[in-house]
Amino acid sequence: MNYSDRIDALREDMKKNGIDFFLTVSSDDHASEYICDHYKFTEYLTGCTSDNVILIVTGDEALLWTDGRYFISAAGELVGSGVKLMKSGEPGVESVSDFLKSHLKEGSRLGFNGMIINSSRAADYERIAGEKKAEVVYDYAPEESVWLNRPDLPVHSLFILPDDITGESYEKKKERLLEKLDGDYIIISKLDDIMWLLNVRGNDIAYNPVALSYMIFGKERQILFIRKEEVTEELSSYLDENGVTLAGYDEIISYIKSLKDCKVMIDPDETSDLVMKTVEKSVGTDRVIKKADPIELMKAVKNDVELDHIRKTYIMDSVAVCRFIFRMKRDVGRVDMTELDAAEILDKMRSELPGYIELSFETIPAYNENAAMAHYAPDKASASRLQKSGFLLVDSGATYMGGTTDVTRTIVLGKLTDQEKADFTSVAVSNLRLLYAKFPKGTSGVGLDAIARQPLWDREIDFNHGTGHGIGYMLNVHEGPQSIRRRNADTPFVPGMITSDEPGIYRENMYGIRTESITECVEVSSGEFGTFLGFRPLTFVPIDLDAIDGNYMTKRDIELLNDYHKKVRNVISPYLKGEELDWLISSTEPVK
Amino acid sequence: MNYSDRIDALREDMKKNGIDFFLTVSSDDHASEYICDHYKFTEYLTGCTSDNVILIVTGDEALLWTDGRYFISAAGELVGSGVKLMKSGEPGVESVSDFLKSHLKEGSRLGFNGMIINSSRAADYERIAGEKKAEVVYDYAPEESVWLNRPDLPVHSLFILPDDITGESYEKKKERLLEKLDGDYIIISKLDDIMWLLNVRGNDIAYNPVALSYMIFGKERQILFIRKEEVTEELSSYLDENGVTLAGYDEIISYIKSLKDCKVMIDPDETSDLVMKTVEKSVGTDRVIKKADPIELMKAVKNDVELDHIRKTYIMDSVAVCRFIFRMKRDVGRVDMTELDAAEILDKMRSELPGYIELSFETIPAYNENAAMAHYAPDKASASRLQKSGFLLVDSGATYMGGTTDVTRTIVLGKLTDQEKADFTSVAVSNLRLLYAKFPKGTSGVGLDAIARQPLWDREIDFNHGTGHGIGYMLNVHEGPQSIRRRNADTPFVPGMITSDEPGIYRENMYGIRTESITECVEVSSGEFGTFLGFRPLTFVPIDLDAIDGNYMTKRDIELLNDYHKKVRNVISPYLKGEELDWLISSTEPVK
Repeated sequence: MNYSDRIDALREDMKKNGIDFFLTVSSDDHASEYICDHYKFTEYLTGCTSDNVILIVTGDEALLWTDGRYFISAAGELVGSGVKLMKSGEPGVESVSDFLKSHLKEGSRLGFNGMIINSSRAADYERIAGEKKAEVVYDYAPEESVWLNRPDLPVHSLFILPDDITGESYEKKKERLLEKLDGDYIIISKLDDIMWLLNVRGNDIAYNPVALSYMIFGKERQILFIRKEEVTEELSSYLDENGVTLAGYDEIISYIKSLKDCKVMIDPDETSDLVMKTVEKSVGTDRVIKKADPIELMKAVKNDVELDHIRKTYIMDSVAVCRFIFRMKRDVGRVDMTELDAAEILDKMRSELPGYIELSFETIPAYNENAAMAHYAPDKASASRLQKSGFLLVDSGATYMGGTTDVTRTIVLGKLTDQEKADFTSVAVSNLRLLYAKFPKGTSGVGLDAIARQPLWDREIDFNHGTGHGIGYMLNVHEGPQSIRRRNADTPFVPGMITSDEPGIYRENMYGIRTESITECVEVSSGEFGTFLGFRPLTFVPIDLDAIDGNYMTKRDIELLNDYHKKVRNVISPYLKGEELDWLISSTEPVK
Repeated sequence: MNYSDRIDALREDMKKNGIDFFLTVSSDDHASEYICDHYKFTEYLTGCTSDNVILIVTGDEALLWTDGRYFISAAGELVGSGVKLMKSGEPGVESVSDFLKSHLKEGSRLGFNGMIINSSRAADYERIAGEKKAEVVYDYAPEESVWLNRPDLPVHSLFILPDDITGESYEKKKERLLEKLDGDYIIISKLDDIMWLLNVRGNDIAYNPVALSYMIFGKERQILFIRKEEVTEELSSYLDENGVTLAGYDEIISYIKSLKDCKVMIDPDETSDLVMKTVEKSVGTDRVIKKADPIELMKAVKNDVELDHIRKTYIMDSVAVCRFIFRMKRDVGRVDMTELDAAEILDKMRSELPGYIELSFETIPAYNENAAMAHYAPDKASASRLQKSGFLLVDSGATYMGGTTDVTRTIVLGKLTDQEKADFTSVAVSNLRLLYAKFPKGTSGVGLDAIARQPLWDREIDFNHGTGHGIGYMLNVHEGPQSIRRRNADTPFVPGMITSDEPGIYRENMYGIRTESITECVEVSSGEFGTFLGFRPLTFVPIDLDAIDGNYMTKRDIELLNDYHKKVRNVISPYLKGEELDWLISSTEPVK
């Protein structure tokens, strides 16, 4: 059964249910970015593996929106599916809202699964439908009927983190959260929030150490909704000691229905439409306090114990990446190797490190033109063979007992063109200028983005993804609330935040370059003009000097590169010896 | 009668009317930034002349909020008034909303004049009052009873601009606006919008060539509400020819009351609370379309005829400023002169230029420590005597038949310290990097601000005002929607927008430096990475080389300075001769 057959089956079901427009997204009941197979319905229908998809199916059209990271890969995946790729944010491309505005008519029926669509989004769609006098069916879930051989929900036990790993007991986090609580309860759907708050981890979603769960948290009561099969005896007594009650994962809706006479705080961006509607019905709309999730910021500002583990973990992880780069530079051309073989080598190195839990995302080993896709994932059939020329971009990371890592380096495998060197150098300059930026307290990512992009803009080049994202501690590789991007990045930086710094240049069908280091936000000084903050690198991996062209750097840029490499040499050299150490020394020689 | 007596008189009136909290702002019925004397009630009560004031008076407190441009001057003006200065946005300073939240109690009565407070602001205050179960009296206007010798409204005739000045007839603007109209009518309160739309100008507010008016604009009817005394016979027949009906300025409320069965579009940020409440009552809340004013963007993107006039006007104005700087550098130390004398010289030069209408704001001639106040205004008693040392900052501009100008240069009068040179150089670098920035289409001011601030941030310095504002065409020196600042600057740049570029460094009690050039947004290129935009200077005045220290510049910064000075020399030298020309040549010599 090919994709267009699957969509036809969906259309039949829509017809049966009187649905004219079906809308779904690549997410789960918890507004997750990464999801378990059970929820990959957009992939089942279209073949598209992007992490950020909105799909609309009508009687005669199927349209899939995704963002700039996936434009190239999605275009490939959708060939022959009959699904039209909509490049979100590109000039002339209709947005989902605009599409609904121009297509919904009086009497049209728009259906979606209110467990998958979050409340903010649903409210937008309902407003548009209202304007057009169209009807919304918010509990239409065709995945339950048309998905053949739908994977089951996974079952994995949770584990508890000790205080010397978390730096703060659940008891203390509970106290802090109670201070931020508006109303009587907060309903938490976001999985990494729940894991962070309870100091536990799970394994239901590949790459994200989280367990499918909900939490209702208030002064009087704290209830964890989770499948019993995932609760060990140890966890059960830990929760009991901490006064946390257990309830079944599928009891969340009926429990919310039993809430009365209380005020409930809830984040509409992170809550499914059905949960929100249930809360509003049971306690009354005027007693629902819709507010940004307070846990996100608490979780983002790492404490001293976490920072100490993170710094050590990043050194260990950087050593592995250095050893991997050395091996690539030595072996490519002598040993037959595909992109997948390279990924396997790196993944194995990481898996042998102490405290290794899992990769933090699928390793991206992208050779030459494949790297023009920011989130390329090769398979056995398609993986390119590495040769002694061009670039190998490797974006990778892992979660260890002591931190979650993420790092990208673009490795020079052989001869480069002048343009390749110019682009590589501009990306390095972009990365370094942001890494070494100082900025007043109160500055947010939207106010820093241009510092990274300027060296590219000067050459009339830009890249189509964010410049930086927050990173969890033994949690998701992408977390908020801070980020560095062109817009929607208004959270001010706070010392202790961990953020990536990852500019790139992508030339379709030619190559892709990205240099990503992870940073820790620190206070720099306090004086006449207030407090200034800056970043400190957590990642210590050389930026490949074989592609550096000093003509694209200011004197100051060269100083920054040399300063960074001096740090890399100091931090990493104790862990290497022999050929590897020699390579490190020559890879961190000052540039003149 | 001193200020505290005036506030006491207000308190008596509040008591009589049962008002516990009185709130007002330095604005008029049209949300104007600059206002005529009739509306300067906050200045009457407190002596504070800032353009951006919120004043709250309670039974025992009076608090005045203003922004960073005015912190130093307001502190001086408020000495002895009993009014407490609240520095908006500074760490630890309670915002107006927070003050209301912490002070309003159940049963408190908060009063304001709903013609002076705009609808968005009023809605915020009403929400807070609602939460606290306090009462809002939105038609409390004590200025009508407690203000002794309140100035009358001014009366000045309007004049009509010909098409070869505006580049677009009212008829064509009308067509374009009708396309953007949601609903049946738009109610326009913003004075410069009305002037722009009708291609007329007035003279009711000093420095702003606008007339007090309202407009109700729809497909069927366009009505201008204005005082009859301001309407010449010529204007009357011009409006008649264009199908615009005249009504009295004070008939606006009663006319709105007569509106029935129609949808009305209105911008709550630019409409007084009383006008909004009247509209909502008369057509019904669900038929009021609250939307950002579409005229602002139309007005901001200048057409080719306007641009042609603007470019020529800026050259003429730049020549005057060059001649003024030459004279200052020659005469200070030889001729006895105060800051005011300097301003008079410059103002006279401008007034003699062809097409001169009025200054676009009160000239700011600030010597040494006075320049630490970003918007300093000397009076005869306080004006400093200029000497052969330090800096003279001059911020000035005018409106001519052909454009409104704005320019700041900081002039070296004598010996400087190393820190003064370093700061001056950093400000120049900041100005130049922004001026020469290239950026992708879609970029807004919030995404450019860091490019200007980075050279200051690198030295742990910052400034407390926006980096750039839009500028009107023969209109207000500050206009939207675009701006360049840390936050709230989300309007993407469009070719044809005119924006200032004005970074500064202010050291209290020492000195202030600002370099302001005005720019035109232009398209730079269109290629693989989309369309890139940039700026072109409209201002051609040397940046004082006597204060440039190359140690604070990269090689590229020096190239930018030399390129800018080369342009200044090419553009301005045809207009100068003798000593003035010699000065221009030496002031634009390339730096090595």
